[in-house]
Amino acid sequence: MKIIVLGGDGYCGWATSLYLSGKGHAVTIVDNFLRRQWDHELGAQTLTPIAPLSDRLRAWYRRTGKTIDLAVGDVADYDFLYTTIKSCQPDAIVHFAEQRSAPYSMIDRKHAVFTQVNNVVGTLNVLFAMREAAPDCHLVKLGTMGEYGTPNIDIEEGYIKIEYNGRSDVLPYPKQPGSFYHLSKVHDSHNIIFCCKIWGLRATDLNQGVVYGTVTDETALSEELVNRFDYDDVFGTVLNRFCAQAAIGEPLTVYGKGGQTRGFLDIRDTVRCVELACLNPANRGDCRVYNQFTEQFSVLDLALKVQEAGKHLGLQVDIDHLQDPRVEAEAHYYNAKHSKLIDLGLKPHFLSDSLLDSLVNIAIQYRDRIDASLMMPQVNWRQPKNERRLQVSLPPIPAAVETHVEVRAKTKRG
Amino acid sequence: MKIIVLGGDGYCGWATSLYLSGKGHAVTIVDNFLRRQWDHELGAQTLTPIAPLSDRLRAWYRRTGKTIDLAVGDVADYDFLYTTIKSCQPDAIVHFAEQRSAPYSMIDRKHAVFTQVNNVVGTLNVLFAMREAAPDCHLVKLGTMGEYGTPNIDIEEGYIKIEYNGRSDVLPYPKQPGSFYHLSKVHDSHNIIFCCKIWGLRATDLNQGVVYGTVTDETALSEELVNRFDYDDVFGTVLNRFCAQAAIGEPLTVYGKGGQTRGFLDIRDTVRCVELACLNPANRGDCRVYNQFTEQFSVLDLALKVQEAGKHLGLQVDIDHLQDPRVEAEAHYYNAKHSKLIDLGLKPHFLSDSLLDSLVNIAIQYRDRIDASLMMPQVNWRQPKNERRLQVSLPPIPAAVETHVEVRAKTKRG
Repeated sequence: MKIIVLGGDGYCGWATSLYLSGKGHAVTIVDNFLRRQWDHELGAQTLTPIAPLSDRLRAWYRRTGKTIDLAVGDVADYDFLYTTIKSCQPDAIVHFAEQRSAPYSMIDRKHAVFTQVNNVVGTLNVLFAMREAAPDCHLVKLGTMGEYGTPNIDIEEGYIKIEYNGRSDVLPYPKQPGSFYHLSKVHDSHNIIFCCKIWGLRATDLNQGVVYGTVTDETALSEELVNRFDYDDVFGTVLNRFCAQAAIGEPLTVYGKGGQTRGFLDIRDTVRCVELACLNPANRGDCRVYNQFTEQFSVLDLALKVQEAGKHLGLQVDIDHLQDPRVEAEAHYYNAKHSKLIDLGLKPHFLSDSLLDSLVNIAIQYRDRIDASLMMPQVNWRQPKNERRLQVSLPPIPAAVETHVEVRAKTKRG
Repeated sequence: MKIIVLGGDGYCGWATSLYLSGKGHAVTIVDNFLRRQWDHELGAQTLTPIAPLSDRLRAWYRRTGKTIDLAVGDVADYDFLYTTIKSCQPDAIVHFAEQRSAPYSMIDRKHAVFTQVNNVVGTLNVLFAMREAAPDCHLVKLGTMGEYGTPNIDIEEGYIKIEYNGRSDVLPYPKQPGSFYHLSKVHDSHNIIFCCKIWGLRATDLNQGVVYGTVTDETALSEELVNRFDYDDVFGTVLNRFCAQAAIGEPLTVYGKGGQTRGFLDIRDTVRCVELACLNPANRGDCRVYNQFTEQFSVLDLALKVQEAGKHLGLQVDIDHLQDPRVEAEAHYYNAKHSKLIDLGLKPHFLSDSLLDSLVNIAIQYRDRIDASLMMPQVNWRQPKNERRLQVSLPPIPAAVETHVEVRAKTKRG
């Protein structure tokens, strides 16, 4: 298939682009490198050193003989996006090109507005460009399980049949997103459903859980193909962050009681789910929703697992319960359905001891690159404006970093 | 009370500002006159000639001795909005300052993006400004009944108790908005609920039905206080448009079968509902939702009522069923609850023969200002780009207008 991957230089986007190319699809990456820009803004770096995209693409060609096309530009720039889609005439567009961090969206008003405008306008542009230039193309859009929040009833895949006062209807599942970022995804979902209805577009909204891991068969082929591994408090997903903390002897930062339960998946399942969606396109006029995760864990479950994995590797791992910087239930009912991708053929990689060991080992391998000052949460949901952390030079000067963290985060250090 | 009315120069905003001022509240209007700008863009004018806002405010003072403050600026300009709210320290902010036309939002991509960015960013700015400058203030936000769409179950006021698989929860009512404009209001609703939750703000989301009428006790005091009366296909609400069509012998333009059923209310109830919401603020942390309408009608019901009113006044009124330019159900179940404002004391003005006669009479009074070329729908939901109508000079040249309409709308004329 001809597939455009919007945001193909990011964490999930890069792994997906390589996987799809490896499977023989003709892949075009669209990216404007904004994700790399945010690293500079935050003074953070991926744990794993990643090469510039042009080097990555050359390395992929050298290793596999396969080419991936690249169009550098912003999905918020309609002329660029329209031209790219019109000339490529893709069978599917995989849309990762959004600001995807909840804490980033909660820094202050400008970051909230940026996140919502960037994500909503980007997706509107994709929808209009499909309607105008490739109406039969299938949109595979990355949503998030966070759109649902934590309702006290079972979470279905996108829609729910409601029986009420003797009548019934199948309606979009009610959404209770927990950050300006998650809200932007809810806005997208409503816009996509509408455009499928009025224009007969086809779309699959993948409500993805929290992704962990970094290695896929393809990224393992060469040092230059290595994927991002974010461990900072803003872009680091929770399990990756815990592994980095374990590797340098920092306590794992559990927010509140740690009873927050979410859906999780291995990045090797992310890439497979996206391919399954592409291979099985939605019907014209349909906006399907798949819940894309394989297992549910509470945050404390994960911390205990990392602690256990640390023991195997001879690491002493403490667990800190910090005051939750987010406004969320710290213990709640959670039962989210996720059978549709399994029905299409997904064979999950469940979280195993060996995977955890390998994740912690990756963190150990790159431990010299870890900046301990990036671990403590600095964005508080309750504040309309969060001061940005002072950027310290790398490698960190231990004393200065300690002092800085002490003053700003007021929490005990391991 | 000290009340800021955002968008106080518009149709509902102006009537509300005068009503609240008349009741003794200290009113500050915030407006950037974008609504007047859209008239120029579309080549349309309100049926009733409206004075510049400064003249309106002076006339109000001359008639009543009451002053209304004015801050000219854009709610999308945060510095302006923050400063205004900080210095005013209002008890309530009534937020009408959004692009409120569904057809306008459906003209093309730029209008869709403008509508969503303008409305979403404006409301985010209001929420941040409240949090930063007036956290105890009560937001009274104009939403729309169109957020719900036309589900096959009863529509509740904002939230619904769902019993599912043996468990239950009260969740936001599922939304199925029918235009990029209606979508923007759904986005706002989710953002408001979230900010009330994380910051303890108080808000009332008034999901308003279709408003009709133009005269209130206050606007009737002087020619310079007269309110807008939009009859064009883009900004004209359906009943007002039908009255204008009846007045000049044009057929009433019913879209499709006319079975589209909606909630309606008299503008005299709009202003009272807003005051009731202000006088009974939500609790801190609560986002209440009130469905603000008084009666349900189908579009065909209304056309038949206007036809009947025309007969009383000696007018021959035909009804045309045009192909529906919108993508919507032309016949459907509709039962929307609307008891909460009644419980607070609203005494509805129901749609009566005498009100209809007076509406048609207003249209007759100003019939020389009616441009017949503005009546036919020119924005088709199915198209991603709708050509703008050629602007004709006023008064219309009948032959030219006829030809233009024939070619563009391909429908029989009365």
